[in-house]
Parts: sequence; C-alpha cells; structure tokens
Amino acid sequence: MGELRKDPVSARWVIMNTDRVSGPDDFDVDRTEKKGGVCPFCYGNEHMTPPEVLCYRENTGVPNSPGWSVRGVPNKFPALKIEGGLDRQGIGIFDMMNGVGAHEVIIENPDHYKEMPDLEISHTERIIRAYRERFNELKKDTRFKYLLIFKNYGASAGASLEHGHTQLIALPIVPKRAVDSLQGAAKYYAERDRCVFCDMIRQELQDKIRIVTENDMFLAYCPFVARFPYEVKIIPKAHRPDFGNISNPEITNFAKIMKDVLTRIRTVLHDPPYNFTISTSPIDGHEYDREDYHWRCNIFPKLAKVAGFEWGSGFYINPTPPECSVKILREAAGVVAHQKTAR
Amino acid sequence: MGELRKDPVSARWVIMNTDRVSGPDDFDVDRTEKKGGVCPFCYGNEHMTPPEVLCYRENTGVPNSPGWSVRGVPNKFPALKIEGGLDRQGIGIFDMMNGVGAHEVIIENPDHYKEMPDLEISHTERIIRAYRERFNELKKDTRFKYLLIFKNYGASAGASLEHGHTQLIALPIVPKRAVDSLQGAAKYYAERDRCVFCDMIRQELQDKIRIVTENDMFLAYCPFVARFPYEVKIIPKAHRPDFGNISNPEITNFAKIMKDVLTRIRTVLHDPPYNFTISTSPIDGHEYDREDYHWRCNIFPKLAKVAGFEWGSGFYINPTPPECSVKILREAAGVVAHQKTAR
Repeated sequence: MGELRKDPVSARWVIMNTDRVSGPDDFDVDRTEKKGGVCPFCYGNEHMTPPEVLCYRENTGVPNSPGWSVRGVPNKFPALKIEGGLDRQGIGIFDMMNGVGAHEVIIENPDHYKEMPDLEISHTERIIRAYRERFNELKKDTRFKYLLIFKNYGASAGASLEHGHTQLIALPIVPKRAVDSLQGAAKYYAERDRCVFCDMIRQELQDKIRIVTENDMFLAYCPFVARFPYEVKIIPKAHRPDFGNISNPEITNFAKIMKDVLTRIRTVLHDPPYNFTISTSPIDGHEYDREDYHWRCNIFPKLAKVAGFEWGSGFYINPTPPECSVKILREAAGVVAHQKTAR
Repeated sequence: MGELRKDPVSARWVIMNTDRVSGPDDFDVDRTEKKGGVCPFCYGNEHMTPPEVLCYRENTGVPNSPGWSVRGVPNKFPALKIEGGLDRQGIGIFDMMNGVGAHEVIIENPDHYKEMPDLEISHTERIIRAYRERFNELKKDTRFKYLLIFKNYGASAGASLEHGHTQLIALPIVPKRAVDSLQGAAKYYAERDRCVFCDMIRQELQDKIRIVTENDMFLAYCPFVARFPYEVKIIPKAHRPDFGNISNPEITNFAKIMKDVLTRIRTVLHDPPYNFTISTSPIDGHEYDREDYHWRCNIFPKLAKVAGFEWGSGFYINPTPPECSVKILREAAGVVAHQKTAR
C-alpha cells in the first residue's frame, strides 16, 4: 500500500510507492562516462574561460596559467550578468526585472577525469573553501538577495561540460522554493520556539532508520519525505543557518561526509548523473543569527525519468521510500572501505 | 541581457535567457518512436488490464473485448489505491496518511501508433468526454480532494507504455503547486475583484505577441513566465473554474485546439516527448462557482536536460523566451495546414 508523507518545512506531500519498490538496478540510468576532448577547464586552456576570480595554487605561476588546484571563473554564458543596477518594471499585470546577478564556476580540480570520490579529503576541503570564499565575496554586493551553490554531474543532470565543476548563482530575488522553506521554518519556529531542522535531526538520530552515515559535525540521511530514490540530505548537526559562516573544522567534516556519500552513490548506482544544491539563508543581514533556519546540502541522483509530470504538477511519486534507499546506501559501506584500502 | 519574470499566480520567478536563444533544433531531443510488441492497450489484450470502468464502443461487443474506441481502466500498478478509509497519523514531527486514492488510465484509441495529431477531431472529442466522465464520477467520492489529469508521451517524459494514454489521479490532498496557485489567485481576487487568469487572457489577447492560435472558446499561448522552451497554455476564454463542467461545444473547441497545438509541437520539434496536465479547482463543493480560479491545460515539451537542478532548487532558467517559442509555433501553421490537406 502506498503512503502519503508531508514535508514539515515546505508542506509538500509525496506519494511513497511501498508496493513495488524499485531497487538500485531497476533504473535505466544515463551514462556519465567522460569522453575527453578540448576542455576549457583543463591545464593550458585557461585562456578559454573569462579571467579567474579565485585561484588556489602552490606554485608561483602567473594568473590564468597551469599549476592551480582549484580555480574560480565567471560563467562564459551567464544566466545573469554582473553589470548594471536593478531595473524593475511592470508590463500590464506582469512584473519583471533585468537580469542582474552573478554566475560563477568553481573548477574542482585540474584532472578532467577526477570527481570528489577520487580526490584526497584535503583537496575536497580546498573546493569547499573556494565555495565559502566566493560565497562571502558575492554576499558583499547589496544588489543580491540569495546565493545558490549547485553541481550538475552528467549530461542528463544538466552538465554542459564534463570536467568536474560546481556553479554559484547570485540572485536579485529569493527563489520560490527558498521562500517556501523559509516561511515553513518560520511558522514552525513561531509555534514551538525551535528550529524545524534541528528537530528533524534529533528525530533522525533517535529513529536511526534513515541515517546513511555521520561524523562529529554532520549527518547524512535519506529524508522521510524524499521526492526521489536515493535522495540524501547532508546537514550540520549543530544549528547553523549560514553556509558562508562554515568553520575550518566543519569544512573538514563536510568534505569527509561528501566524499563518503558520493562514493556510496557512485558504487551502488553505477556512477549515475546527479545534482546537489546547498540551501542556505538569504543574504539579508540576518544570515548569521537566524534562529529558525539551517543550511543543508541535498543530493539528487538522476534515476527515474518522470521529470515532466513532476515539473508540471509539483506532485511527486517516489518509487523507492527512503527506508529502502538507506539500506542500499548503508550496505555500500563495505565496498567503499574496500575501495579506500585498495587505492 | 537576461531578464527575470514573475508569475502573478504562483509568485515564481524565472530567468529568461534572452542572449543565447535556443532554436527548435538546438535540443538533443530523445526519440519517441514507437517499437510495438505485446501491448495491454491493444485490441485483443483487454484481459491484460484490470476490468474497464469506461468504454465507448459502436459495436455490440461484450465488456473488455475489442471494438471499443476509447477505454478507461484502473492503473494496474496504481500509485494510490481505491480501497479503505483515510487514516492519518503523526510520526514524531512528521505527518502521513495511507495512500487512498484512484489512479486510472484512459486508453485514447485502439491504434498503437496513433496520437492526437493523427486522430479525427470527433475522436479527440470522445477522449475528452471520457476525461469528463471519469472526472465527474471520481468527484463523487468524498475521500478525494483533488483530481489531476495528465499525459506522459515518450519514455523520457515518463511514459512506461507507448500506446497513447492519459492518466487520472484522485488525491486525498490538494497538491502543493495547486495550493500555491489557488492562494495566489485568491490574493489577486481579494485585491482586485477579478480572476487573475481572466486578466491574463485579456492581456494576451491585447498584446497579441504570445498567441499560438485561438478559436471561439479557447486561447493557446506561450506564457509570459514560461519555465520551459515551447511551453504552451490552453485556456477557456470565458471564466470556467471547473474542468468537470466543460460543455459539449467546449469539448469540440478544446479537441480542435489540442490537435492543432500538438501537431505544431510535433512538426516543429520533431515529435518530442511531452507532458500535459489539466489544472482545475479542487473538488470541495465550490468547483463550479469559484470566482477566482480558472481551469487550463499546460503542455510541456521535454527538450532541455536540466531537470535535476530545477527539481532541487525550484529555480528555472528558460533558454527560449516565450516570444521566441511562439514565433516558431506560429510558423508551423503552414506546415500543419498542408499536412491536413495532404491526408
């Protein structure tokens, strides 16, 4: 019998198909194999991107030359442009504004074929430091209201270049899904004087049935109201509203758990396309001290091809309840440990 | 320069990429070619589906035997089941209920290879009459709050069987996207005493720049805040809150405009996968007389592979603004007319 579950933050209902549960091999997963070729994110092609805005390098090379370990550049084809003031206008009953914003790319490592599961923890730490650095830099621009960090891995998850990269978009508005979450969290806080995310963490730690893995500072679990098979949420255990405020020890722990979870997903689901997004507080001056909000990273492997209907209706049917997804992801631990030893 | 546009109903902002506009051939569209094989929706295989709940036939055949023109059956693998009462419960901070509902399939025609663009208008009328009949039948069940009619065409749009069919889901809750639209429309009505959809229709008819086609009773246009390339909205020109109340003359006009629009999409975009959804009032006893709401059909060709990020963030970037999509769809008129003559 299926069941309906309600997200306590967004108020979204999801149908869990508990009758015909899809296993990890029941999906016709698109291939993510990298083909190589001329790549603007590889060493020697630095001139093919706009000039860098961030560069971690150990050598003494000049800017926009090889030798870097992590590199940040503006997107060559940005969805929004950095120049100009905000110009709002009404067109009849419609509202619009010009596309002021920022759209940047963090090139995660020089090797075209390496992704987070292949990198040393110390390197993944550098990637996350780069996220923090660009996040806090863009936060200073008062035209922006919201910063979104996300990764598309694999063509069918929206990646147009195969070299590992993360994107950062600065928006002059708060996107609707963030507004919904903020309102849901504020309502919960108003009623109970507690952060809804902290309450969910407490409940997941108590129930233990949806936890993929954890470390001192972070919890990775398959959410009770997962919309997608093998969806994983990674969240700081302590109350942390602002990603930009992530500490160095937290970066180490976040890098460890990201590598662990992404390795499990790669192992169990045969290197599927995926997306992750970092959801955090809007940059409105209260990002540090907001008592009702909590940043988190959501990872969505792209498995089921049911996109269009869900796009159209906002209504989700999940063929693999999180309690089933988590079992498979937990079992991957042995394989993951073995891989670590073997390398 | 890109621009940001706000949906006056849902309050969702969409980035329109007005710089690098994608043309109809810029998408790597998945193939929808039908392969045939044993199909439970073809003549002679009626025993492969659950017993029919609707059947239009001109011959005197017995139920669940060949000779029908449109056939309605329960989904063999329903997301929700019809048996049982509603059982709500809390699990810690989470809310859930058991999966009571209905999940039906309307088999649109007996020919495995024919879709709406290939059918006579009189046949498409029958399909829409079948939607209305099952809609009004399920509406009587007081456990249900919302009825959703939708079609998935092509595997990558979520169709698991290739024989032309539409689905109908009866839900014990109103899905979040419908709640958002209802609230947005109610707010607009409270401020202005006018239906926001009627105002949008007036504006589109006045502006004329986003209209694909129209007839006496329906308007087909590319919405100002389209989330996807070549997204088309078909809406009754008169104020009609309830799809279940569609009149026979409206069915004729709806069938004509559906065939016209789907033929244009097939022609211009090379038979792409698509979804359509019919959004209408919740079935709460006010579906007939609601002054602030309006039913409509949204058609989404599945072209761009950017699903995961949009799923995760609720934030949309549309590479083809509606003013560009509409030009291509309008130009298809000649081709469409020619095809009609040739057949």
